[in-house]
Amino acid sequence: MKIALAQLNYYIGDFEGNLTRILDAVHQATEKESDLVVFSELSICGYPPLDLLEREDFTATCNRYVEKLAESIGKEIGVLIGGPEFNTGKEGKLLFNSVFFLQGGKIQQVFRKTLLPTYDIFDEYRYFEPNHEFNILEFKGKRLAVTICEDLWDEQPFESEFSRSRLYTTNPLEELNRFKPDMIINLAASPFSHRKLDLKQSIFTNKAARYGLPVLYCNQVGAHTELIFEGGSLAINNNGEVVRRLDFFQEDFDVIDLEMLVDGKPVSSKGEIPDRIEMIADALVCGIRDYFGKMNFKRATLGLSGGIDSAVTLVLAAQALGPENMHVLLLPSQYSSDHSIDDSVLLAQNLGVRYSILPIEKVFNQFRETLQPLFGNLPEDIAEENIQARIRSTLLMALSNKFENILLNTSNKSETAVGYGTLYGDMSGGLSVLGDVYKTDVYSLAQYFNRDGKVIPNNIITKPPSAELRPGQKDTDSLPPYDVLDRILEDYIEKQLQPEKVAALGFDLELVRRIIGMVDQNEYKRYQSPPILRISSKAFGVGRRLPLVAKY
Amino acid sequence: MKIALAQLNYYIGDFEGNLTRILDAVHQATEKESDLVVFSELSICGYPPLDLLEREDFTATCNRYVEKLAESIGKEIGVLIGGPEFNTGKEGKLLFNSVFFLQGGKIQQVFRKTLLPTYDIFDEYRYFEPNHEFNILEFKGKRLAVTICEDLWDEQPFESEFSRSRLYTTNPLEELNRFKPDMIINLAASPFSHRKLDLKQSIFTNKAARYGLPVLYCNQVGAHTELIFEGGSLAINNNGEVVRRLDFFQEDFDVIDLEMLVDGKPVSSKGEIPDRIEMIADALVCGIRDYFGKMNFKRATLGLSGGIDSAVTLVLAAQALGPENMHVLLLPSQYSSDHSIDDSVLLAQNLGVRYSILPIEKVFNQFRETLQPLFGNLPEDIAEENIQARIRSTLLMALSNKFENILLNTSNKSETAVGYGTLYGDMSGGLSVLGDVYKTDVYSLAQYFNRDGKVIPNNIITKPPSAELRPGQKDTDSLPPYDVLDRILEDYIEKQLQPEKVAALGFDLELVRRIIGMVDQNEYKRYQSPPILRISSKAFGVGRRLPLVAKY
Repeated sequence: MKIALAQLNYYIGDFEGNLTRILDAVHQATEKESDLVVFSELSICGYPPLDLLEREDFTATCNRYVEKLAESIGKEIGVLIGGPEFNTGKEGKLLFNSVFFLQGGKIQQVFRKTLLPTYDIFDEYRYFEPNHEFNILEFKGKRLAVTICEDLWDEQPFESEFSRSRLYTTNPLEELNRFKPDMIINLAASPFSHRKLDLKQSIFTNKAARYGLPVLYCNQVGAHTELIFEGGSLAINNNGEVVRRLDFFQEDFDVIDLEMLVDGKPVSSKGEIPDRIEMIADALVCGIRDYFGKMNFKRATLGLSGGIDSAVTLVLAAQALGPENMHVLLLPSQYSSDHSIDDSVLLAQNLGVRYSILPIEKVFNQFRETLQPLFGNLPEDIAEENIQARIRSTLLMALSNKFENILLNTSNKSETAVGYGTLYGDMSGGLSVLGDVYKTDVYSLAQYFNRDGKVIPNNIITKPPSAELRPGQKDTDSLPPYDVLDRILEDYIEKQLQPEKVAALGFDLELVRRIIGMVDQNEYKRYQSPPILRISSKAFGVGRRLPLVAKY
Repeated sequence: MKIALAQLNYYIGDFEGNLTRILDAVHQATEKESDLVVFSELSICGYPPLDLLEREDFTATCNRYVEKLAESIGKEIGVLIGGPEFNTGKEGKLLFNSVFFLQGGKIQQVFRKTLLPTYDIFDEYRYFEPNHEFNILEFKGKRLAVTICEDLWDEQPFESEFSRSRLYTTNPLEELNRFKPDMIINLAASPFSHRKLDLKQSIFTNKAARYGLPVLYCNQVGAHTELIFEGGSLAINNNGEVVRRLDFFQEDFDVIDLEMLVDGKPVSSKGEIPDRIEMIADALVCGIRDYFGKMNFKRATLGLSGGIDSAVTLVLAAQALGPENMHVLLLPSQYSSDHSIDDSVLLAQNLGVRYSILPIEKVFNQFRETLQPLFGNLPEDIAEENIQARIRSTLLMALSNKFENILLNTSNKSETAVGYGTLYGDMSGGLSVLGDVYKTDVYSLAQYFNRDGKVIPNNIITKPPSAELRPGQKDTDSLPPYDVLDRILEDYIEKQLQPEKVAALGFDLELVRRIIGMVDQNEYKRYQSPPILRISSKAFGVGRRLPLVAKY
């Protein structure tokens, strides 16, 4: 039996576009004499549709398009496609998260998701009733165990210490194994996390080895606002070895011969995961590209400060959108160092990106004059610092509004965590590119971009980080060095360790408490942050929901 | 048997503060010779703790405080207190949402929540394993069916058309009724919704009538960021009549004699719900008061435009915080009408609120000069309009940063819905007061505030709404009249009707499509909006989760 894996980039709610993509893949699979073609979870509409699922017409439209697809499928090939399904029972949530098996012009069989992830960025129990009835797909003499994403994750390792592998009271594969299947198929929509790729792969290889069954895993690829799906669909043999892996961060397609998925047959891929920083760079480029592509935006802008965050953001954006679609602003104040401007100009020139220099001093002075009746002779403080940041964002947004260049936010995860940024100032933007990337990884990205020649001027990489909002200001005035800060932050944010446990890993308890205090106190700023491209297991945004008004 | 209802305003994670409140109520109950005192859902920590529940130390601290409370409870009184509980089983979510029965110095019995709301603003399945084992509280010769909030909502009417009353496959009261209880107790944390108070009450009166049992319902009161809990705890007799209702929007306490909860005994309350607009006003004042009180903020600011939204916001804020804690800015441009300033001054004077007038024209001109190299002679458009709005927010935030006056956002739900506002401009603020109030209700609030004399000058109420960002601009230039707009919006947002069904209620289909298109296209602005005080069944914010990048 030959099974095609169709790893596609869907667009949520774009039914015509998704159907065209799907039909192309069916056509390709038919040409290559596949018996079956497998798509990803909720592929008819794209994942995650979120509260669009609360609209009856949305699921009705999904169903209509599944029917439409079914009508164009003949006898010669089977199709496994994901989509929401109405729960016609009298009780429970209104929908199932289902996979439809299409053949001979109609829907032949339906499989429903049993384990509904409801943690981090996942809210599936918000919409779906879990499945309780198991069945097998008998097709061309083979028995296929059809599962949907989390169904294979009944045992999973979480990064947080307060978690456990057995989050569910059901194990779908144990149920399905009673049907004595010949293989496992998994339709997934599993988002990227830079420290979890090995782990994700091991989930599938372990299942294959434990049940002695080949596994075909078809993942969604591409980005939907903050969520980036890496693709990397897998064909695994019954010994738990990766035989074939589809591309990361782009559409891919391949036909797998079931014969090749038995122990002893040659294994062409070793399943090594590429370098972590390279994966992060590719993920972010994919995130920017799809945000713009799907929103039908072409051009972007950002403020180039002479610092490393805006430099790295610019390199990523130029890769994703083309340097000809970037127009960046250099917005020096009286506190900007000369080399900030020179370095920025050099970077823009290296990349072939258009730049303009708009000094903000005059507007700043006019703001101070306007505020004179209120501020009198009070000493300058954070108020004046923030005015500068807000002048810059107003100028960037003016460019954005006039010429339709979407403003990219350049804040990194470390500063976003401790609130080192100005709301409506440098925290502005349509999309945050680095908001889930710790500062130390921003440096690694810069090194990675310079691997074959100098793209980012050395000065930008080596100078001490500074917001340049007052004379001689440096990040280390109020923060520990970033290598210390980032480890404390990761222990607290990703691993959710309490202060004492973070300190036990080798940090001063008072410092840890101060940093954690800063993270907690700045929840209100992050509430209004732009969507952040998610690359970690715990990004700021929809996957992290903390009360603003709380004392803990 | 005498049972005390303790309707308290908790502060999430403030364990010492919450315990003090709880102990005061126990003391009061003991003095009044109560047999039992009932608190609300998750009362030890306050509801909703959100992802604080993902920290092991948070639940451990909850448990420690429940133990501490238990130690101070003697033989003479029982206590029902809510808190998270570790799930010590080997499978399933790590916690239960539980109620602890305390007496004689220790935890005597535990009751767990069966129905876990996971829709709208609720995410309980994110944290909690549902209960499957039922038990009864036998206490002083009575059998009490202890339930937690949603446990009584197995049948519920949703406002959305695509919904159903039987969202769950279990009915806890049917299970508990097998124990032949003498009454039902419900510990709740049920947030305010201005069109659902009747309905909420009927949930409890219907259960009482159906099972022929008295119901005691103890709700949380007070606001936690966007969520406002109205209190209004109930004592209902076995005939389904409301015998006593505690106050709305403030702490309250009463001792109910079980003898009085039988059919035929005099009913002191008729359970009428106060006027809808009055309730909205009280809810918003409560929301502002608790946001500031719990965050330990004293002072607020806002921009007074001469329009009705900022006027109504100011009246609410002055009520909540005291006029002496307000300092508002009038920020006229060349496009502001004279009466905008006069009306605003009059309003501030009527309320006894400090105001300053800072004209923005000079800063605006300086921005235009700075942008001249980019904009050249291009005609003025939305870019220049937005610059004005952003100058205003920069000035307001400067005041906020310098003097610690928190900026209140004054946008209403109608304009927030259609994207009629400037990101980082008038969409700024620490808290949105009217973001869940349609414009037509903003007018009703103004009339309500003027009921005993003119607080808001007539001009502000009667003049045509305008953003005054270009000469002669009016809201109706691009929007239908607000009474039409608001009905379309409510049908789409609250009831989730598709365009054709909205139009069938008496609107032009093309208009409906245009409005809905505006709502969908402006999702990206609302993503960065401040927290919005929630008064409806579907507010923008955490309860409404739509993909930014979508084509539907």
